[in-house]
Amino acid sequence: MSTVIKNGTVVTADLTYKADVLIEDGKIVEVGDNLSGDETLDATGCYVMPGGIDPHTHLEMPFMGTYSSDDFESGTRAALAGGTTMVVDFAIPSPGQGLLDALQMWDNKSTRAHCDYSFHMAITWWSEQVFNEMETVVREKGINTFKHFMAYKGAMMVNDDELFASFQRCAELGALPLVHAENGDVVADLQQKFLAEGNDGPEAHAYSRPPAVEGEATNRAIMIADMAGVPLYVVHTSCEESHEAIRRARQQGKRVYGEPLIQHLTLDESEYAHPDWDHAARRVMSPPFRNKQHQDSLWAGLASGSLSVVATDHCAFTTDQKRYGVGDFTKIPNGTGGLEDRMPMLWTYGVETGRITPNEFVAVTSTNIAKILNIYPKKGAIMKGADADLVVWDPAKEKTISASSQQSAIDYNVFEGKHVKGLPRYTLTRGRVAVHDGDFKGQEGHGEFVSREPFQAV
Amino acid sequence: MSTVIKNGTVVTADLTYKADVLIEDGKIVEVGDNLSGDETLDATGCYVMPGGIDPHTHLEMPFMGTYSSDDFESGTRAALAGGTTMVVDFAIPSPGQGLLDALQMWDNKSTRAHCDYSFHMAITWWSEQVFNEMETVVREKGINTFKHFMAYKGAMMVNDDELFASFQRCAELGALPLVHAENGDVVADLQQKFLAEGNDGPEAHAYSRPPAVEGEATNRAIMIADMAGVPLYVVHTSCEESHEAIRRARQQGKRVYGEPLIQHLTLDESEYAHPDWDHAARRVMSPPFRNKQHQDSLWAGLASGSLSVVATDHCAFTTDQKRYGVGDFTKIPNGTGGLEDRMPMLWTYGVETGRITPNEFVAVTSTNIAKILNIYPKKGAIMKGADADLVVWDPAKEKTISASSQQSAIDYNVFEGKHVKGLPRYTLTRGRVAVHDGDFKGQEGHGEFVSREPFQAV
Amino acid sequence: MSTVIKNGTVVTADLTYKADVLIEDGKIVEVGDNLSGDETLDATGCYVMPGGIDPHTHLEMPFMGTYSSDDFESGTRAALAGGTTMVVDFAIPSPGQGLLDALQMWDNKSTRAHCDYSFHMAITWWSEQVFNEMETVVREKGINTFKHFMAYKGAMMVNDDELFASFQRCAELGALPLVHAENGDVVADLQQKFLAEGNDGPEAHAYSRPPAVEGEATNRAIMIADMAGVPLYVVHTSCEESHEAIRRARQQGKRVYGEPLIQHLTLDESEYAHPDWDHAARRVMSPPFRNKQHQDSLWAGLASGSLSVVATDHCAFTTDQKRYGVGDFTKIPNGTGGLEDRMPMLWTYGVETGRITPNEFVAVTSTNIAKILNIYPKKGAIMKGADADLVVWDPAKEKTISASSQQSAIDYNVFEGKHVKGLPRYTLTRGRVAVHDGDFKGQEGHGEFVSREPFQAV
Amino acid sequence: MSTVIKNGTVVTADLTYKADVLIEDGKIVEVGDNLSGDETLDATGCYVMPGGIDPHTHLEMPFMGTYSSDDFESGTRAALAGGTTMVVDFAIPSPGQGLLDALQMWDNKSTRAHCDYSFHMAITWWSEQVFNEMETVVREKGINTFKHFMAYKGAMMVNDDELFASFQRCAELGALPLVHAENGDVVADLQQKFLAEGNDGPEAHAYSRPPAVEGEATNRAIMIADMAGVPLYVVHTSCEESHEAIRRARQQGKRVYGEPLIQHLTLDESEYAHPDWDHAARRVMSPPFRNKQHQDSLWAGLASGSLSVVATDHCAFTTDQKRYGVGDFTKIPNGTGGLEDRMPMLWTYGVETGRITPNEFVAVTSTNIAKILNIYPKKGAIMKGADADLVVWDPAKEKTISASSQQSAIDYNVFEGKHVKGLPRYTLTRGRVAVHDGDFKGQEGHGEFVSREPFQAV
Ligand SMILES: [Zn+2]
Ligand SMILES: [Zn+2]
Ligand SMILES: [Zn+2]
Ligand SMILES: [Zn+2]
Ligand SMILES: [Zn+2]
Ligand SMILES: [Zn+2]
Ligand SMILES: [Zn+2]
Ligand SMILES: [Zn+2]
Repeated sequence: MSTVIKNGTVVTADLTYKADVLIEDGKIVEVGDNLSGDETLDATGCYVMPGGIDPHTHLEMPFMGTYSSDDFESGTRAALAGGTTMVVDFAIPSPGQGLLDALQMWDNKSTRAHCDYSFHMAITWWSEQVFNEMETVVREKGINTFKHFMAYKGAMMVNDDELFASFQRCAELGALPLVHAENGDVVADLQQKFLAEGNDGPEAHAYSRPPAVEGEATNRAIMIADMAGVPLYVVHTSCEESHEAIRRARQQGKRVYGEPLIQHLTLDESEYAHPDWDHAARRVMSPPFRNKQHQDSLWAGLASGSLSVVATDHCAFTTDQKRYGVGDFTKIPNGTGGLEDRMPMLWTYGVETGRITPNEFVAVTSTNIAKILNIYPKKGAIMKGADADLVVWDPAKEKTISASSQQSAIDYNVFEGKHVKGLPRYTLTRGRVAVHDGDFKGQEGHGEFVSREPFQAV
Repeated sequence: MSTVIKNGTVVTADLTYKADVLIEDGKIVEVGDNLSGDETLDATGCYVMPGGIDPHTHLEMPFMGTYSSDDFESGTRAALAGGTTMVVDFAIPSPGQGLLDALQMWDNKSTRAHCDYSFHMAITWWSEQVFNEMETVVREKGINTFKHFMAYKGAMMVNDDELFASFQRCAELGALPLVHAENGDVVADLQQKFLAEGNDGPEAHAYSRPPAVEGEATNRAIMIADMAGVPLYVVHTSCEESHEAIRRARQQGKRVYGEPLIQHLTLDESEYAHPDWDHAARRVMSPPFRNKQHQDSLWAGLASGSLSVVATDHCAFTTDQKRYGVGDFTKIPNGTGGLEDRMPMLWTYGVETGRITPNEFVAVTSTNIAKILNIYPKKGAIMKGADADLVVWDPAKEKTISASSQQSAIDYNVFEGKHVKGLPRYTLTRGRVAVHDGDFKGQEGHGEFVSREPFQAV
Repeated sequence: MSTVIKNGTVVTADLTYKADVLIEDGKIVEVGDNLSGDETLDATGCYVMPGGIDPHTHLEMPFMGTYSSDDFESGTRAALAGGTTMVVDFAIPSPGQGLLDALQMWDNKSTRAHCDYSFHMAITWWSEQVFNEMETVVREKGINTFKHFMAYKGAMMVNDDELFASFQRCAELGALPLVHAENGDVVADLQQKFLAEGNDGPEAHAYSRPPAVEGEATNRAIMIADMAGVPLYVVHTSCEESHEAIRRARQQGKRVYGEPLIQHLTLDESEYAHPDWDHAARRVMSPPFRNKQHQDSLWAGLASGSLSVVATDHCAFTTDQKRYGVGDFTKIPNGTGGLEDRMPMLWTYGVETGRITPNEFVAVTSTNIAKILNIYPKKGAIMKGADADLVVWDPAKEKTISASSQQSAIDYNVFEGKHVKGLPRYTLTRGRVAVHDGDFKGQEGHGEFVSREPFQAV
Repeated sequence: MSTVIKNGTVVTADLTYKADVLIEDGKIVEVGDNLSGDETLDATGCYVMPGGIDPHTHLEMPFMGTYSSDDFESGTRAALAGGTTMVVDFAIPSPGQGLLDALQMWDNKSTRAHCDYSFHMAITWWSEQVFNEMETVVREKGINTFKHFMAYKGAMMVNDDELFASFQRCAELGALPLVHAENGDVVADLQQKFLAEGNDGPEAHAYSRPPAVEGEATNRAIMIADMAGVPLYVVHTSCEESHEAIRRARQQGKRVYGEPLIQHLTLDESEYAHPDWDHAARRVMSPPFRNKQHQDSLWAGLASGSLSVVATDHCAFTTDQKRYGVGDFTKIPNGTGGLEDRMPMLWTYGVETGRITPNEFVAVTSTNIAKILNIYPKKGAIMKGADADLVVWDPAKEKTISASSQQSAIDYNVFEGKHVKGLPRYTLTRGRVAVHDGDFKGQEGHGEFVSREPFQAV
């Protein structure tokens, strides 16, 4: 059976033009004029764009004996509802656990996914076993990215020695290292200081993770990557300090990528001053929200190219789960949702305001990510042979974001009340219409793992 | 008749993949596997890339009663020989001359072109006539770029007032302003100072145009463009000072493009210290060559994206013409060649050395230019429907550059003796093979004017 | 007769220590313990500091057939009341007028001064006469600084050619060039644009002089000074753009000084949004007040040393005078007061808040200025042989600023209602007590011209 | 007995003037004209300047069972010979050793000093004992500075946690933290890598400590100091990366001081390429010498004020001691001499070349140091009451540096063959002439410990 998207305007990362798109067997088979197929989707007045890719999610992530509340089923359902057709989640071994063992656990979780997905592998400790399994992960498991936490001391944090060893290993294997960049020692000390002073509320979470600690760690990771001879991807770049370090590195010819989150682009630190503990705690994530000047820096980075992609770090905890941290902000589970809202929020605050062009929107939500993760043009492209992961984007469609109508399993939404303009008319995952005008028509288990080849030596 | 390029690896600005390319009627009609056509060009071992676009040439440019020695015939012949399939020249009215009048003159010169071409229009004076004719130039003549000289005092230089007026007019018309950025007042004073001190040789040309005067003018033009609400394109960015101003602007979200020349990327100021007057005078151009640190800055800019395109400012004067300036360096005609050598030199010094990737090579020699000039994907792309301006690039092919074997009409080559690796096996202009393994098979008059639409308001 | 200041803490630009100060014949004759004299001033609980020097005032400045309302009598009275013991005013020739002729006019105005003063000479046009008279001004008239206006097109503005000529002349003569840095062409165009759009109120004054035009001109002046081989002093540095240019230059080893005004450090652009035309018009000065981020930049510059001195640009117009500009903001006389409030405002917002130390306070209000103007240690120092221009500063003394109690001749005060802590107990001009606890005891004509020697070649 | 220095020109950090200096009981008692005393030193043609202070020496430092070869006797003899009248050495506890215990060891070493001295205390491990003893060190032992090594892993290195704790403790006590800033983890890994590859010579020492690791650590220390609310002093700032971090911090209003060494200002990395192992090994120090661009950065920092002082890190090992590292560069004792040559080298390469003024020379060799270490104006000043630590500097006196004529105990000199112009005619330590025209007349044990008070809270 074939499907044709007719009467739309194709928007890719580098081009805008009128064309129809013909799909067969989950792939794009033709882009051109006057195409026809068994099924026709009308795109009149719409942009036909590559489906979004979210390079940073935590679905069903283990946390203190429970899990983050969106699993691969509800999480990918939310993704598709918002125009995102692929997510990349993190397989996170416990310290001491083997990489392959952890990967098996994440494989098991993902069976109900509605859209395609892939994994980053986290390096949370270091040993000869880890060193050796990295090769298997790259060569046999289709994973070319390794995540490193510079914070979360006493848990997943790795030190400079381990970072350098792992980055060098990445260089050998053609893999790309990722970092969560915050100085974990200083964060841990600040947390204890605030608790000791009786500051135990969510606002102290933000105080304990100031921009300076993120900027420092970003700068350090860049240096270590440079010494190891490997590019670097900095997740959730939230502030000018971190952005400055990335810019400076890029200007020296280093290959460094920064990933702002839609949350940091549109929400600010005033959220933590909310008198309602629940309100504030629901916004607790790391790094925390920043002030307006940091937001300006991030937007300028997207426009100028010094920041590369927009993600969510989607990690959804219910209010009940958040309340584990009443009386001790360090126990509030870190994470916010965003999968369903990333694309409409970015369109509304980025494209509608003139900060970025529609082509740049596609670049930062999809194409740049696909290139960096080495899955372009299977993903992130509208061309013959590419996967038919597509979104038919209606720039006139509006809604007000509300937890009451969301796909996510949790009971609130950090964007509650935001009015967005620009929403999917259709979202297609490998040719299958999963969303039509807000109706979800996905299929559990339709999503497949996307294998990613190692990079060749530059 | 159809032509197919077989067995090559297609390299575009964002993708590398094995595919054949099928051409009919001067256009690409298919990119895919196992294509066949009437004529077959073998691309085994080669990269199939969009033909180069040189956004900055001066063919048959008037100068003191004579002309620069490469005209549209020899100039485009040289271009094709080096893999460049389109040039953009400058129509330059004399102060007082109407824009349309000048354009007619340039139209007349271009009839013998071997490859496609377009024009930038220069604004060398200001009046209501100029203001009015700018609209005609944009709406009727297919030109969306206006060049401004901030140097050449007493000739083509415009002052800040005129710049601001013209930039605002560009904003209204959807046109992009270009600047030659040097502080003309200071240059003129320094020239007189050096002459007065008896420094009349070519080396004084470089002394009279230090990096600081270029950096200043770039910074000033950026501010004026920002006030006018229009993007800016800075031609021949040659130094860190200018690059710094561009970087700073881009980081503030301004849309500013920098164009290093292949000459500034690969030749340095030591050329002017050559004891042979002719050697030095042949290298006289504005801005002059800089030192190694400036070169490093330009290369880093290409890698990081803060500089956008590589051009030549090809303006070829014979040694006899250069000798007008014996005894007075200010009378040496400004300009060097480069059209034939830009692509092999950039490949050799950029790709072979690992500074930039093959995809980035395509971006800076073709695709970025096409996008900035609003002719993408007619030019600068390998996709169905695009013009078949293509180069089949043999990365193993080598030669030593020499005036004795060049297409250019002049008697020397500033790259004389440079060994390059990476040369065209075939160059095609709208489907026509114009070059095959160094043999020129072009056709006078084959080249057509490429009309360029105005930009839409962002 | 001798005077001794007893029991105070001497604070200089580089030292804080307990000591008495003994004065005879207008000079300091000893600094030490247990001194005695004919007259004793008690400084218990106070800091004894060099009197302030305001390097930037316009007293009785001609304006449209009238004059700014504070003359040398009321202006220096205000100065002394606030702890400032010397002012440097600007002798401004009309275009076409000789420098010596203008200087004579300013000499005549200054006869009633209560405290010492000196002059900067403005270069408002260029000719052989100007070139020649510059030498006389430096060699015979005791003036080593020349001011240049890059704005005020059609009036005092000089172009780049003239700037470069004058800066080179300064280099020959051992004089320091000063610039009012705004791009006059762009300002003039923006003024016309806003007027044409019907924006004729005071807020349009600020719109027509955005930070970008100041940053540009600063950057340009720095380049021209560098080419001329002369240091540069940038008056009324008001924004990050200008400060950035100064910082960048200093980091390249250039000798560039920036002068923020107390107004820009403490008042912001919201003043122009005041619904009362008078309120807004009274704050009209060039550059206009900026936003908080620019203020932060200026404070950081003072703390880090990238900005050198704090001035006032005191130029006081009455509300009646301001009303010349009703219906056309370009006719509002530019200028605000500040002489009486500079020191208390800077102490309150700088020292009391911890942004700068007491020693840095002395440096930026007095010592740095004296050094830059080459009158140190006659002025700006507490040491044997220095002029006894002193302020006995009571850090506990408070008041609320109000026009009703000020010395200035005008009917309002831009700092109205600001509460300051830190005020003079005594102000001494060459040993004479001119102010005691708010009582003014000065003497008309006591002030003398301070001759300033040219700089030696570095 | 009194001594008078006559006919000289006094040069301080902020002033140059003709005056005599009268000394009694080791202190300056008068600065003025026509002074007389029991003994007269003729300063005709000379500058009378505060004696140099070297804030960074390692005399008789323990190393693998032996000691650095200049002890307090020969080291201070070398210091005085070169115009330096005070040194600040480092008391370095072994990990596990108490601070007071270590201090006692250093006290014992210093009894034979010819000139005054003080100590920094190193924090090489962390415990409650260290925390407690820090208070004693500050309150009772006259030490207000604590040094931290971010390199020398497995020996003196402290981690971020310890740094943060110690910096916070410094903040409480009014002490200033110092850092040796290199990323010790990365250095250790690079050392092992080079050794494993068979690169065991002195040149590998430089490869293992690239500028990037210094820049990173500097940036990190600045952030940690900022979080702790304490200023920071970065010893031996050797490269642009580190300088950039310091500049950036200062521009944000942070109080950070950088200390380039005279070696890094005048010697470059080419020294390590010398074919003679001994030549290269004698230059082994950390950080290693850098290239010319880094030197340019350091000089610009001194001129613009972003770098504060010039030191030596004098730590003299004989060639025999250096040879411990034959076959393993990590065993070459780190350190070079410089005490005798700092002032003449800086004068020759700084003042004679016009990079810095004589006043700036005094500032960076003496006055700034005294202020930062809180001993101004006892040291670093020429004023009544100051210690008569003075140098009568003859700008016309020349010599060629050679180990054969030096005071230092070692058998070579890293500046061998450098021709310097500008040398002491007299050096006085607390009024005692210790050097006259190259003849050493010092007295063992004359030197006294200089107690330094804690800083007050800002
Ligand atoms: Zn994270
Ligand atoms: Zn995450
Ligand atoms: Zn040009
Ligand atoms: Zn040109
Ligand atoms: Zn002004
Ligand atoms: Zn003024
Ligand atoms: Zn060290
Ligand atoms: Zn040391």
